[in-house]
Amino acid sequence: MNAQHPSIAIVGAGAVGGYYGARLAQHGHDVHFLLRGDYDAVRRNGLVVESCDGDFRLPAETVRVYDDVSRMPKADLVVVTLKSTSNDQLEPLVGPLLKDESAVLTLQNGLGNEDRLAELFGARRVLGGMAFVCINRVAPGVIRHTDHGIIRLGEFAVRERTERARRVAGLFNASRVKCEVLDDLRFGRWQKLVWNVPFNGLGATLDLTTDRLVNTAEGLALVRQLMEEVRAAARADGVDLPADLVDANINNTLSMGPYKSSMQVDRQQGRAMEVEAILGEPLRRARAGGAQTPVLEALCRAARVVDAGIRIRGGAELAPA
Amino acid sequence: MNAQHPSIAIVGAGAVGGYYGARLAQHGHDVHFLLRGDYDAVRRNGLVVESCDGDFRLPAETVRVYDDVSRMPKADLVVVTLKSTSNDQLEPLVGPLLKDESAVLTLQNGLGNEDRLAELFGARRVLGGMAFVCINRVAPGVIRHTDHGIIRLGEFAVRERTERARRVAGLFNASRVKCEVLDDLRFGRWQKLVWNVPFNGLGATLDLTTDRLVNTAEGLALVRQLMEEVRAAARADGVDLPADLVDANINNTLSMGPYKSSMQVDRQQGRAMEVEAILGEPLRRARAGGAQTPVLEALCRAARVVDAGIRIRGGAELAPA
Repeated sequence: MNAQHPSIAIVGAGAVGGYYGARLAQHGHDVHFLLRGDYDAVRRNGLVVESCDGDFRLPAETVRVYDDVSRMPKADLVVVTLKSTSNDQLEPLVGPLLKDESAVLTLQNGLGNEDRLAELFGARRVLGGMAFVCINRVAPGVIRHTDHGIIRLGEFAVRERTERARRVAGLFNASRVKCEVLDDLRFGRWQKLVWNVPFNGLGATLDLTTDRLVNTAEGLALVRQLMEEVRAAARADGVDLPADLVDANINNTLSMGPYKSSMQVDRQQGRAMEVEAILGEPLRRARAGGAQTPVLEALCRAARVVDAGIRIRGGAELAPA
Repeated sequence: MNAQHPSIAIVGAGAVGGYYGARLAQHGHDVHFLLRGDYDAVRRNGLVVESCDGDFRLPAETVRVYDDVSRMPKADLVVVTLKSTSNDQLEPLVGPLLKDESAVLTLQNGLGNEDRLAELFGARRVLGGMAFVCINRVAPGVIRHTDHGIIRLGEFAVRERTERARRVAGLFNASRVKCEVLDDLRFGRWQKLVWNVPFNGLGATLDLTTDRLVNTAEGLALVRQLMEEVRAAARADGVDLPADLVDANINNTLSMGPYKSSMQVDRQQGRAMEVEAILGEPLRRARAGGAQTPVLEALCRAARVVDAGIRIRGGAELAPA
């Protein structure tokens, strides 16, 4: 990614991809969006962002949207915001966009996304990032951004803050998106799972909002058990998460009020749940490293059964848009 | 219970109590029903049973129904069919019905009901039974019986088939209800939990019918784990359940098609779930006996959180009617 004015492709322009891509385009970058479901709406009306930091619109005349990757130009930076349940489409959707020096940044949830991109396209290309943002697609081509927005990103292949990672972060920071560079992406991924495993995983599987899990004694006991098992799984994967992360995450969640995680929303709307990225891959690493995680295992199984039922009832996969 | 023509009180005449009580009354026994919600309907229209073994009705003029235990005569046999979530009402509802020699038979679900009655009224009075029956209350005072009906009962205080247990079974057998006497009630209770813990407990907690649990690889793995943990808990409680019970229960359930357990129905209708009798008490016995049951523990916690949510949403306790 050496270009002065890099071209940027957003693969899977749902809420997260649409928002961050729109911020980059709003600030003069050369952004190309790959959409599916919302293509016609954006073609017609442009991309609308209702944001707590100020509304804006990318007009239909200037926004560069595609529904076919073969018509897109190659990009210096490919930002992957597909739902992880569509990772079987990474090869056909990302491959055609790559030049020799292109970088790929995944902003997807959970574990294993960087590994998959590295297998397909080479580890040296890959960066990963976590988006801490409250965002919804409220209508075709309309994204509502209600809170936060920071991205924390880092290199996949090396544990250091490279010049490349700084340049990617610079693109966001110059576009009204706060972005920090991590020296250890794996630590960041596991750290986020301390929250995601109980509140996305258990919350979606039981169909309960966060407050119901932390405001009952038994719910809190389960949440603590799962958080400790995530720490054990992380240790088995070579990452040492501090013990006080558990209380910090619980206290933070207690102050949030009733909150519906993305996975619970997926369940309620009949869409595939990100079970493998958030539960399955952490469990596989726990097993591979010999950690005992019985509650995580039971939760992962239960989540897979619930998710299979959602598909039986005819939920549609929403990918890449 | 020495009388030639014993008087029988049915405490908590919901579907189970209404059905079995009606069978006894239909065959000439002196049966007195304590109801709550359906009292007015039965007072007015009698008690209607739509049964796969032949419909019948106890006419309003002859059926003996009460909404106040203080107006009931004492009974030789008190049959308790309250939902176990109303066990805090056992003392005021059963106590006034007892004579020196009265027997108390609980047909409630799960573990701990006999123990509670024994604490309150003396162990020598207590019998327990399991009703294997498909039954629903379809309208006030109208019970639909669709399949099965056998009762298996035994003494609580001694492990033998007493003359008293035979006499109680005889009342049912003479009233078109097949009834067997067990020489070990505790074995029977634990045996039934091998099915109830996964299919009532897990099915209600995840809101899944039985077929969804046994027709997915991950569901079946969870079901097996829970059944093995029930065996471990039973062992810790002094009951040795044979290993082949696991496969027998799974194969039986595979042949049943989609089936909604009573606990799942309770969840869906916003009524209290029988968490303590079916999950909590087995877990307490596992812990007391030093058994390792991590999945049962997690399930019990999750079920309590789900149940608490049902109560928050305003589900009403249906007791005793």
